[in-house]
Amino acid sequence: MYISKTTLRIHYALTDQMGVVYHSRYAEFFEIGRTEALRQLGITYKEIEQSGVIMPVTELHTRFLRPARYDDLITIVTTLREIPVHSKITFISEIYNEQNELLTTGSVTLYFMEKSGKKRAEMPHVIKDKILPYFPTIE
Amino acid sequence: MYISKTTLRIHYALTDQMGVVYHSRYAEFFEIGRTEALRQLGITYKEIEQSGVIMPVTELHTRFLRPARYDDLITIVTTLREIPVHSKITFISEIYNEQNELLTTGSVTLYFMEKSGKKRAEMPHVIKDKILPYFPTIE
Amino acid sequence: MYISKTTLRIHYALTDQMGVVYHSRYAEFFEIGRTEALRQLGITYKEIEQSGVIMPVTELHTRFLRPARYDDLITIVTTLREIPVHSKITFISEIYNEQNELLTTGSVTLYFMEKSGKKRAEMPHVIKDKILPYFPTIE
Amino acid sequence: MYISKTTLRIHYALTDQMGVVYHSRYAEFFEIGRTEALRQLGITYKEIEQSGVIMPVTELHTRFLRPARYDDLITIVTTLREIPVHSKITFISEIYNEQNELLTTGSVTLYFMEKSGKKRAEMPHVIKDKILPYFPTIE
Repeated sequence: MYISKTTLRIHYALTDQMGVVYHSRYAEFFEIGRTEALRQLGITYKEIEQSGVIMPVTELHTRFLRPARYDDLITIVTTLREIPVHSKITFISEIYNEQNELLTTGSVTLYFMEKSGKKRAEMPHVIKDKILPYFPTIE
Repeated sequence: MYISKTTLRIHYALTDQMGVVYHSRYAEFFEIGRTEALRQLGITYKEIEQSGVIMPVTELHTRFLRPARYDDLITIVTTLREIPVHSKITFISEIYNEQNELLTTGSVTLYFMEKSGKKRAEMPHVIKDKILPYFPTIE
Repeated sequence: MYISKTTLRIHYALTDQMGVVYHSRYAEFFEIGRTEALRQLGITYKEIEQSGVIMPVTELHTRFLRPARYDDLITIVTTLREIPVHSKITFISEIYNEQNELLTTGSVTLYFMEKSGKKRAEMPHVIKDKILPYFPTIE
Repeated sequence: MYISKTTLRIHYALTDQMGVVYHSRYAEFFEIGRTEALRQLGITYKEIEQSGVIMPVTELHTRFLRPARYDDLITIVTTLREIPVHSKITFISEIYNEQNELLTTGSVTLYFMEKSGKKRAEMPHVIKDKILPYFPTIE
């Protein structure tokens, strides 16, 4: 299992007239979380794209428990629970506020796709090499 | 069962550098779809809020099958399959492009909440009265 | 002079916690307005891009007079006051609400650029041919 | 004169299909910049709102010189050049990339307004007290 954390300050544009963060925005927070999760492993998604592989989202599940509010400093916890197989990868996300209350949980599944041919691709070696050490039972 | 359709033109701001609509945007399309579904019943969500009830989203599930692209005229199909119970309401959404290809499916659950007291509320009568005729077995 | 109108319904995602449309969103409305202005001339920006010319924004001026609000049906009035010269084009935008109150005025300057070479380009003939009839004194 | 700096990582949602940050997004960067400028003075905009004063944007000017791109770590430089008068305040913003290239310049004017009465308000003392020391010639 691999866990990563990053923080984000909620700016005004993210709020709506209920006085809370508009629900679609959490998918962006999940994106920021998994990008930083990769970066903390020494991988940038930018380089993955430059190497010819893109990662479109194929499935998104979100539960909204409590609202995030303007100026909150949220913590995005991103977890990789299973080693990716069959060209898909699933990140589990949790959003917490400064009082450590769980606001939102999410599950985002992406797949690896060739940028040119629009065909499914294998997980790039650069990712596999960095991720495998966190899953010691897999050999 | 109640079904409603509305259309939307994809503008540039909705695209990302993969050349497709960014995945978080579909939650906005679902919002537009259910607002128009209510409007076609003679209800505006604006009036519901003004009457003191707000409808936060509590759960969102989305599957992304094919991308929507810049300048696509998408059709948002919004379906109410079950009569809402226990202060929750679930809308099923499907997004189609002009070739009638299914792009995305979504399920969005909202609950009725008192604007002032932040307590769960019953479904407002104005909605119940308009919806019930579409569910004839319920008496 | 060429004038075009289009309408847009304000959805919840566009509002902020002041209860009005967040100010950055008007640039999107201006984009929608000029795209529809071109479409009403028989041109799509999509085809311009496919022909190898892109139109980045180089300058944006906006004055905010009155707020647009949730569920407002706004009218975007887009005006081309001068025939474009030197690979630049400026659209003037005005946003009105249903009470015909002027909410926002904007001026957006874009330039024509080669998609491949990243060099300035001439205004495509497809645009020039459609626009010139609206500027009869220019020969 | 008061100058403040903050940084921001460009995530995917901010890009468009030109492969650059969509132009309306810079107004959000300016917002983040001036909020952090206030915070570095010991003021939060959140508290200003809670004290009953809101700050709507009345004017926005932006020049786009070079694009920001995905994964860029941009620096937002926010400058207060003049002591605010007549319930208006103008922030000057500059956006730089990691190569220290100037990408965008902006000028954003906001005014102080009573949250309740929707009337113009004076600049709150909490802001005035923090800002004045940076403008020594004004007494």
